[in-house]
Amino acid sequence: MNILLIYAHPEPRSLNGSLKSFIIKRLENAGHFVQLSDLYAMKWKAALDADDNTERQADARFDPSLNSKQAFEQGTQSKDIALEQDKLRWANAVILQFPLWWFSMPAILKGWVERVYAYGFAYGVGEHSDAHWGDRYGEGMMAGKRAMLVVTAGGWESHYSPRGINGPIDDILFPIQHGILYYPGFDTLPPFVIYRSSRTDEIRFSRICEELGQRLDDLWKAAPIPFRPQNAGEYDIPRLTLRSDVAPGQYGFGAHVALNQL
Amino acid sequence: MNILLIYAHPEPRSLNGSLKSFIIKRLENAGHFVQLSDLYAMKWKAALDADDNTERQADARFDPSLNSKQAFEQGTQSKDIALEQDKLRWANAVILQFPLWWFSMPAILKGWVERVYAYGFAYGVGEHSDAHWGDRYGEGMMAGKRAMLVVTAGGWESHYSPRGINGPIDDILFPIQHGILYYPGFDTLPPFVIYRSSRTDEIRFSRICEELGQRLDDLWKAAPIPFRPQNAGEYDIPRLTLRSDVAPGQYGFGAHVALNQL
Repeated sequence: MNILLIYAHPEPRSLNGSLKSFIIKRLENAGHFVQLSDLYAMKWKAALDADDNTERQADARFDPSLNSKQAFEQGTQSKDIALEQDKLRWANAVILQFPLWWFSMPAILKGWVERVYAYGFAYGVGEHSDAHWGDRYGEGMMAGKRAMLVVTAGGWESHYSPRGINGPIDDILFPIQHGILYYPGFDTLPPFVIYRSSRTDEIRFSRICEELGQRLDDLWKAAPIPFRPQNAGEYDIPRLTLRSDVAPGQYGFGAHVALNQL
Repeated sequence: MNILLIYAHPEPRSLNGSLKSFIIKRLENAGHFVQLSDLYAMKWKAALDADDNTERQADARFDPSLNSKQAFEQGTQSKDIALEQDKLRWANAVILQFPLWWFSMPAILKGWVERVYAYGFAYGVGEHSDAHWGDRYGEGMMAGKRAMLVVTAGGWESHYSPRGINGPIDDILFPIQHGILYYPGFDTLPPFVIYRSSRTDEIRFSRICEELGQRLDDLWKAAPIPFRPQNAGEYDIPRLTLRSDVAPGQYGFGAHVALNQL
């Protein structure tokens, strides 16, 4: 299988750097093909702007969606964007690996999403009607592909527990796992999260690699998070609220997961 | 009063651009002093990296926290970072204004947070013991200052409602309002959110300005979101989970708000 690893840490000699090397080796040893997008090493341009379309009129009012749509349709996207899209097309699975900074992904990775997720590619796809609100949330260009987060966090696991002060990790990651991965169609696997990342000695690193290795071995058979598909009858369209008979009385992120595990 | 407006949109001739001008004018007309950080116009460097410390050893292993701590203590931070910190010290209130892109802030603004929020400035502050887990979540360098988000979203309000497919807007914004604003001590006001932002004609724009203007007039008297302070007895330290007698049976982001409005 083909796996794309999107990696966002500035220091190769870090826990994240070691994990990145481990992931590539483990997957390649299992016979897979791996492409790496090492965003810091690539000096990835983080800020979405008008230059992302190489042929737009200099004095035109810049509309981010429209500019993205036109560039994607006309083949005038900035080359770095088109290359990443090709990697996504090639991939059967995508892993996003990053340290949790201020409860989200690093800016450089957020900028990868904003620029690579073009209109017509990751959103603005498919029929848009009162029965079908675009191919998204379970449908879309990434349908049939799998995705997984590998995340390091400085805080303790209890700080990210259901009553922990930072909020539950599943909720912190929901805008990414549901809003960025499931949205264009990825089957999103449960995340692999490492807490207290600054306290990792060799023994702990071995144990982490063992657990992560198992997760990588199971990449094709593990059950995805059962997010509810948008266009399969569980949501009223165009309001896009859960139908009253679906998860009655539930609200919030958890209501969009078919088996509420909390 | 002194107000810092952090603004992240690439096009001045946009709804966000117009709102930015309105905010400045409204506040100045009320006798306040406004500083603007127009991140796109400033060509703000989004990616946190080793260069953020101007005097680090070129071959040293880069540890983001340690590098930030040393640069902050020794006064060797990159100048753009130090300037923004000075603006934060000067401000009585901070407004973050941005379009919601992929359910979070634009990368350029995330990179402002990551780089300006230095160790010793926005985190790693205060006593760290079994009774007091650092000055954070209600304490810290921004204590006594107010903050508010002004956010535009393309989707409908119902899509962001308690059972809406994107998840409730309060939960989507929690990692920002609680994790980025309340964390270093800001009193965080309820957000001002504009939905279906691409459908804004002149009549609607006038109405938005009226509502937003009222919110700006009330900046000093509005009640902040009643997030629970970390070190005031409601959390077990160091686990940092809510004590069993606080919001019993509740979990998730909403449990950290003293008056659960849902």
